[in-house]
Amino acid sequence: MNLQKRKELVEVALGKREADTVLKNGNLINVFSGEIYRANIYIYDKYIANIVECEADTINIGKNIIDVEGRFISPGFIDSHVHIESSHLTPVNFARAVLPKGTTTIIADPHEIANVLGVNGVKYMIENSKDVPMTQYYLIPSCVPSVVGLENAGAEFDDIEIEKMLDFPRVLGLGEVMDFVGVINQSDRMTKIVETAIKKGMFVQGHAPELSGNELSAYICGGPISCHETRSGQQASDKIRKGMYVDARESSISKNITSIVKNIKNMKSPRNLTLCTDDREPKDILEVGHVNDCVRVAVKAGLEPIEAIRATTLNTAQEYKLDKIGAIAPGYFADIVVLDNLVDFNVLKTFWHGKLVAENDKLTVEIKNPNLEIDTLNSVYINELSETDFKIKAPIENGEIKIEVLSYLTKERSVTDRKTVVVNVKDGFIDISKNTNLNFVAIINRHKSNNNIALAVVENFYLKNGGVGTTYSHDSHNLTIIFNKPNEALAIAQKIKELGGGIVTSENGLITGVLPFPIAGMLSNQPAEILSKEITEMNKILKKMGIETASPITRPTTLALIVIPNTKMSDLGLIDVKEQKIINLFN
Amino acid sequence: MNLQKRKELVEVALGKREADTVLKNGNLINVFSGEIYRANIYIYDKYIANIVECEADTINIGKNIIDVEGRFISPGFIDSHVHIESSHLTPVNFARAVLPKGTTTIIADPHEIANVLGVNGVKYMIENSKDVPMTQYYLIPSCVPSVVGLENAGAEFDDIEIEKMLDFPRVLGLGEVMDFVGVINQSDRMTKIVETAIKKGMFVQGHAPELSGNELSAYICGGPISCHETRSGQQASDKIRKGMYVDARESSISKNITSIVKNIKNMKSPRNLTLCTDDREPKDILEVGHVNDCVRVAVKAGLEPIEAIRATTLNTAQEYKLDKIGAIAPGYFADIVVLDNLVDFNVLKTFWHGKLVAENDKLTVEIKNPNLEIDTLNSVYINELSETDFKIKAPIENGEIKIEVLSYLTKERSVTDRKTVVVNVKDGFIDISKNTNLNFVAIINRHKSNNNIALAVVENFYLKNGGVGTTYSHDSHNLTIIFNKPNEALAIAQKIKELGGGIVTSENGLITGVLPFPIAGMLSNQPAEILSKEITEMNKILKKMGIETASPITRPTTLALIVIPNTKMSDLGLIDVKEQKIINLFN
Repeated sequence: MNLQKRKELVEVALGKREADTVLKNGNLINVFSGEIYRANIYIYDKYIANIVECEADTINIGKNIIDVEGRFISPGFIDSHVHIESSHLTPVNFARAVLPKGTTTIIADPHEIANVLGVNGVKYMIENSKDVPMTQYYLIPSCVPSVVGLENAGAEFDDIEIEKMLDFPRVLGLGEVMDFVGVINQSDRMTKIVETAIKKGMFVQGHAPELSGNELSAYICGGPISCHETRSGQQASDKIRKGMYVDARESSISKNITSIVKNIKNMKSPRNLTLCTDDREPKDILEVGHVNDCVRVAVKAGLEPIEAIRATTLNTAQEYKLDKIGAIAPGYFADIVVLDNLVDFNVLKTFWHGKLVAENDKLTVEIKNPNLEIDTLNSVYINELSETDFKIKAPIENGEIKIEVLSYLTKERSVTDRKTVVVNVKDGFIDISKNTNLNFVAIINRHKSNNNIALAVVENFYLKNGGVGTTYSHDSHNLTIIFNKPNEALAIAQKIKELGGGIVTSENGLITGVLPFPIAGMLSNQPAEILSKEITEMNKILKKMGIETASPITRPTTLALIVIPNTKMSDLGLIDVKEQKIINLFN
Repeated sequence: MNLQKRKELVEVALGKREADTVLKNGNLINVFSGEIYRANIYIYDKYIANIVECEADTINIGKNIIDVEGRFISPGFIDSHVHIESSHLTPVNFARAVLPKGTTTIIADPHEIANVLGVNGVKYMIENSKDVPMTQYYLIPSCVPSVVGLENAGAEFDDIEIEKMLDFPRVLGLGEVMDFVGVINQSDRMTKIVETAIKKGMFVQGHAPELSGNELSAYICGGPISCHETRSGQQASDKIRKGMYVDARESSISKNITSIVKNIKNMKSPRNLTLCTDDREPKDILEVGHVNDCVRVAVKAGLEPIEAIRATTLNTAQEYKLDKIGAIAPGYFADIVVLDNLVDFNVLKTFWHGKLVAENDKLTVEIKNPNLEIDTLNSVYINELSETDFKIKAPIENGEIKIEVLSYLTKERSVTDRKTVVVNVKDGFIDISKNTNLNFVAIINRHKSNNNIALAVVENFYLKNGGVGTTYSHDSHNLTIIFNKPNEALAIAQKIKELGGGIVTSENGLITGVLPFPIAGMLSNQPAEILSKEITEMNKILKKMGIETASPITRPTTLALIVIPNTKMSDLGLIDVKEQKIINLFN
């Protein structure tokens, strides 16, 4: 706020200058005092000038007076941890989707796009969101690639590169430090990376799944301040007690808030509980909600409404040391949400920086798409391929052989194990046509750096027929294809190259479904409403092919996630996650 | 913390390296979760490495294991607003006095010494406290002098000078912005000064006595974040609701905590309530306590112990955005207090940065006095004077005349009014020998800049006989002498010049009492124990002379405080505080 604006704001507070907007007769949720009471809110320019209890109000001047008739007035919601890429929306389209849900600020970790486009990917997210009517803060991905030496992503960030990116605009610190083993063991790479942020006095986001006790203390001593990977209430309690911000998560897949809330009931107004969405699909955002849904779930689980609102406003602002947001007070940014009630948390109006940006679930402002180079860049670099590239050469010509496979434990979760199975060999190549529950899998490096192709066999993926390929494949986002026949894999690879990325299905060499992600092979250029329908369509196709999880499109995207136990795959081959080693298919 | 230290701390957390100190079997007051439970605390170097619930502890290694047998363990106390000069102790002696009371961090405003020595005064406080075993943060005084043009202090700070001082070490921002009228009216001087801190992203401390409603909102919009001038609960409520940090005060004179606490009982865990001492005399610190006494008073008034502790630890750390203090958690500084119980809040042990610094009300470490130039500088610059300098010339030679006087309203409070009284004139000079309840007063500029002497008459000061002079005289700290006979004033002025400052009494030209403040005319070089006795002695003398307030030595120190209503005095003459004008003695 410049001097002149501050002067004008002071005048509005004194009633000597007309407010731009007056929100009258709301039930103000005061996150400082923990009270709820009737008040009028005077907004000028981007800011709140004054809050006056209704019966004491003698000002009553304003260009635009909105009577909210006893509805609840909350500070705009802050998402304490989100990957925009998980929605496959561009930052602009993401803003369009979440503003009607009351989210006015996010802290995003562009970890996915960074694995593909490196520094340019991070820049893209920041530039794309430059003029959106919401506050998008960014963190610099700390673990690109997720495990050095076991996969080839599109980039590799060291401490020097990270240090430079920490100076980019709207950057608050370091994104989730997933390599918790590296922190606890104080590996050279991780300590250096964490140090870059600490010495700049910036935020260090944690990622401490299943950590507790001494190991949790050690991780915290190592630098990370927060964690969104908390599944049980016991873990939440341990983390909150130790001063770690628990960003309780309600993503499309991981629903942790209920368990966390139920297990911290003995706590009094915990200061370091926040709420986050982490990864939400567009359909969920549109139909269920965004941070407002996290609040709803928390309250349903037993958290007092005032504490749930605090969690997603003031607590988060304090977590990231954000000034003048997260509360409704004089001098604060007028980021305000009007809610129907304190059960459903449906958002009737969203104000960002004093402007009404959404009303009754619809945007009320035009948000322009910036034109950036990356929007039209094809990021899928793969060579000419042939069917033979998708056949696994066996060490024998014909007969039976034991092969190491990656085996899913359940239909829903991404946890896998290693297993030895017996398969046929025909003319020197592995033949799985007799083994139900087996599929082939290919990971094709699709980045500029190399042309690796790794092949293997996966069990319990449940792809009855055909093949599916995706360039959105955590964390390196190489092209992952699960298939039954080589001609299916080839067709998919060719189509995906043409599209510049996406999810594609094939049967017998014919393309049966297409979900384009032309931006970095992971983002659609469509708004949430259209993309959501496209995803629903693709999910139907995948379901028919045999993938019966709640969200079929996410099933292939975690096969190459080599930080999830116990056996995964990269462009270098099958990976033993715990041992951090490549597994030979044939022993 | 450097990389190597962090590595070692991680090892201690894991139980792989011996802790320096283990505090065993304490009842940990967890300010994050609002819980109290048994835990062992592992300390290494300056930091906390681990906190383990007693029954779950399997580490049990440490060089020094201290069993605290169920005593309460709190984060070290933080004083959210204090003027060290009010104790007349040097920063080093102040540390010696407050550490046994559990205060490990203070945010000090060196406003008083700045009025005398300017930038050098601020530097002195910072340098004197350089090696104390506590954390002394400083704010840069914003209102030197308190009102420009109405008095001549030893310095005048403009925004340019303040901007430079904001870069001094351990400086967090701008000290109390007392000129609230200037902020509300957006005066050029105050807006510029406030802007210096805001544009550096630094703290702006407020001072908003009696402000509420629209004016309070306007003041907050103008920049200040906090206020320690809150006397009533209603004001506290208004301020807390508006996001202002309420630094609830319990000074030697102003006891506001009880009223504040009683009136915010409907609030749920207010986030922006903190506690402060503002001005405490050494006797109070030694006998009653310091911040621990604020906590005691708050709890007695009905605040839950956990909230009282939060107020003076986590809340204050958040107020000033201080990292890694204000809580007991891994990676935090080991600033820890062991308390007897949650009623008396007597401090059994104080740890600062991992070191036991006080135990059973005694320091356990040696704290050295740095030798600085200002320690031996005589800051009292006054010319040779004669008795005539202390006689008020009347516009008539003999008879009676009406004169404007400064009249105290009560024996205790510093509020005054203007009054017209009739006095005798004898040989051209005012003669008050017939008027009981009248005394003379002289304000002598004692700074380098000029030699002004202002004379006037004061009513209801109750100095039955003799005179008292002080160089500790808010805010410009000119030499203030209240007296009955000119020879008393002269003797006092001469003695004070010789001492380099202090409080001196005289009767009939003979010195009857001396309390030396040789440093800047406001600080003793004695420790609290000795100074406290000296003050008691001086108080006895003043009481005998007729000053019967609770703290007689403070009575003369506010006569020249030209920001307190309604009539005060400066080296320029009688001042109408509200009109901000000089009053002619004779109309």
